[in-house]
Amino acid sequence: MKNKKGFFQLISSQEFIHFFDRFAEIDQEMVPLNEALNRFPAQDITSPEALPPFLRSTMDGYAVRARDTFGCSESEPALLTVVGEIPMGVSGRDFSLKPGQVAAIWTGGELAEKADAVVMVEYSNVLDDETIEVFRAVAPGENVIRAGEDFEKGAVVLHKGCTLRPQDLGVLAGLGITKVPVFKKPVVGIISTGDELVEPDKELAPGKIRDINTTTLSALVIEAGGIPLPLGIINDDFATMLDACEKAIARPVDALLLSGGSSVGKRDFTLSVFKEIDDTEMLAHGVAIRPGKPTILAQKNNCALFGLPGHVASAMVVFYLFVRPLLRKFSGATDAGLRAIVATTGEQIPSAIGREEYVRVRLEQGGDNLQPTAYPVYGKSGLLKPLVAADGLLMIARDCEGLDKGENAQVLLFPA
Amino acid sequence: MKNKKGFFQLISSQEFIHFFDRFAEIDQEMVPLNEALNRFPAQDITSPEALPPFLRSTMDGYAVRARDTFGCSESEPALLTVVGEIPMGVSGRDFSLKPGQVAAIWTGGELAEKADAVVMVEYSNVLDDETIEVFRAVAPGENVIRAGEDFEKGAVVLHKGCTLRPQDLGVLAGLGITKVPVFKKPVVGIISTGDELVEPDKELAPGKIRDINTTTLSALVIEAGGIPLPLGIINDDFATMLDACEKAIARPVDALLLSGGSSVGKRDFTLSVFKEIDDTEMLAHGVAIRPGKPTILAQKNNCALFGLPGHVASAMVVFYLFVRPLLRKFSGATDAGLRAIVATTGEQIPSAIGREEYVRVRLEQGGDNLQPTAYPVYGKSGLLKPLVAADGLLMIARDCEGLDKGENAQVLLFPA
Repeated sequence: MKNKKGFFQLISSQEFIHFFDRFAEIDQEMVPLNEALNRFPAQDITSPEALPPFLRSTMDGYAVRARDTFGCSESEPALLTVVGEIPMGVSGRDFSLKPGQVAAIWTGGELAEKADAVVMVEYSNVLDDETIEVFRAVAPGENVIRAGEDFEKGAVVLHKGCTLRPQDLGVLAGLGITKVPVFKKPVVGIISTGDELVEPDKELAPGKIRDINTTTLSALVIEAGGIPLPLGIINDDFATMLDACEKAIARPVDALLLSGGSSVGKRDFTLSVFKEIDDTEMLAHGVAIRPGKPTILAQKNNCALFGLPGHVASAMVVFYLFVRPLLRKFSGATDAGLRAIVATTGEQIPSAIGREEYVRVRLEQGGDNLQPTAYPVYGKSGLLKPLVAADGLLMIARDCEGLDKGENAQVLLFPA
Repeated sequence: MKNKKGFFQLISSQEFIHFFDRFAEIDQEMVPLNEALNRFPAQDITSPEALPPFLRSTMDGYAVRARDTFGCSESEPALLTVVGEIPMGVSGRDFSLKPGQVAAIWTGGELAEKADAVVMVEYSNVLDDETIEVFRAVAPGENVIRAGEDFEKGAVVLHKGCTLRPQDLGVLAGLGITKVPVFKKPVVGIISTGDELVEPDKELAPGKIRDINTTTLSALVIEAGGIPLPLGIINDDFATMLDACEKAIARPVDALLLSGGSSVGKRDFTLSVFKEIDDTEMLAHGVAIRPGKPTILAQKNNCALFGLPGHVASAMVVFYLFVRPLLRKFSGATDAGLRAIVATTGEQIPSAIGREEYVRVRLEQGGDNLQPTAYPVYGKSGLLKPLVAADGLLMIARDCEGLDKGENAQVLLFPA
């Protein structure tokens, strides 16, 4: 165990996140497109062929030799000969246009040989079965997409670590790529600690409360793209906790979240348990944020051991600030954090110097301001209701004494 | 079939959405909490019991009778007698405090009988095994949460139609609610039409391209909280399309998305196919938006039949503007649309009067401005690359000729 010195000294959230450089991306797997939504490519994905595969019309109209239309106008239309129609899904190369000839074509159709542009049907007029007049000249390349104009063969289509969205999957389908290499979903063990906790479906004995953190953290892990492995409630007993942690790590898991027991109280075993596990390195105990100060981070090989605050509201802030970015790093994602927006403060929000504050806020849209207004959702420490009412976390910097009403501030949006 | 009059007249996007009043929420089901993330409660959820269930400490310290601390200070501490420790998970009611007595307590513990506040351990000092001094007075109710302070029995915890987030599921667990009534996920049939289309995993013959829309729309349906039912590629043939649509509706599906064939081209059968289906009512053909003008909406009982533009970029805009809100309505969600943020335009963006424009934009964060800057991602009609590069859709109102550089504008964010 290293880093014993300065161990209980609070570090900044930036210093905390800096420790994630010590963790590596996890393994890869191939998944079909219908399982790839919101996953992250494990490598740059390149185009195996040109897209579109052929010179394609972007309009309904006539495939033409552009020069045949040069100089035409409403008053002096070009008279051109229709040699046929290019049906959809059939090669346009069956036609070769001689000067003065055109072929009817539909949006998405392949141009005829020698054709280099498309006249929109709106700028033409049918004179008889074989003849049209064209009122507006087209330049070569007009109303067409050339083969490979979207993606040349070998071009990078999607970068490693991007989030695969519906449109990205569509483009892969368009290129004939039906499986994609992605990073595996990190598996996250979840343990709630506390003699006062019972499972949510159990009867409450006096002095007991139901475990909230397992349910909340499991859903947070899913939202972050991981696989939750709920491991139940462990009593505040050193040997039991050590055993549970060692078994979890052996599953194996990529991260272990132990909530409760990370402050300095008499029964707070998390730190000593993490220290007792073979080959763990203690990285952090205490971060200059509020809530979330007593957060613990330890490392065993590539597994991250988190000690989270016991109250779900604090645990959630720590999850969003630290656990989610590390899970996204495990998954190879380039985009780690929550989406942030700018809001106007609806009232004065005081803060303490020396720690970053994450104030739960409710957002209201409306008024003249396009920007939403953020109102703090206060409540006694330990209450859950403010958590249900909040839309996100307003950030107040470490050296800021607070924000006045009407100031701009960044708000991390809770995913919904 | 009604509404024959004015049928090909463009309607506004608001008028289009107004038709959704004709559709009702779909059936309900009970799901366990671990399947309820991002679902929508089918009714208000009320608290079956008080939370917290007992008078709870929010700090480590001593449960006291507040009046015993009144008037104490650093110079004149109150001397109080420790009668024991309330272990976590055990009823504090085993102790009853006489005047001058306190009990050690941990965060989350139940207060002793007659105790009405908690002195934080930081404001106390241990003199001997039985005696502490207290330096700071506490008021009754300080550092405690009373039974039911979070939620009284019968209080509404979550409203019908809210999105169930991790923290909301946690609160339900805390109340002992382990199953929740939600609206079913709407089932959405997806048909791509076009003689030029082949499945993504097939070889390309000349003039053919791969189907992009089935993959994209399926993923969009999943993101919107629905269940996609991909029904393959149908050729541009009236009888085949009619048969495919009737079979899809009979599955049954809550919505059917037919992409391709909704403009006025010769092979555009969607409208006539929808009209031919028994008991359908045509609601809209043509919306004053760009892209997406040729969108069709028809209704058969509570099933919505959409004709979407053939190009994926346009189909996606129509999905986000119209299909997603209707799917969310089917699911009982109060929150229908995409998340919108305010961005500053990075360059001039022209627009045409008479239709709402949805301009694909890339967002850049940084500079002095907290607000992101939006740059249009232009590209020829029919190209896919701009779709991959874009982060969202910048909205330009119907009667606006465009935006200057540096103006504020609303951007609908693509989910990611």
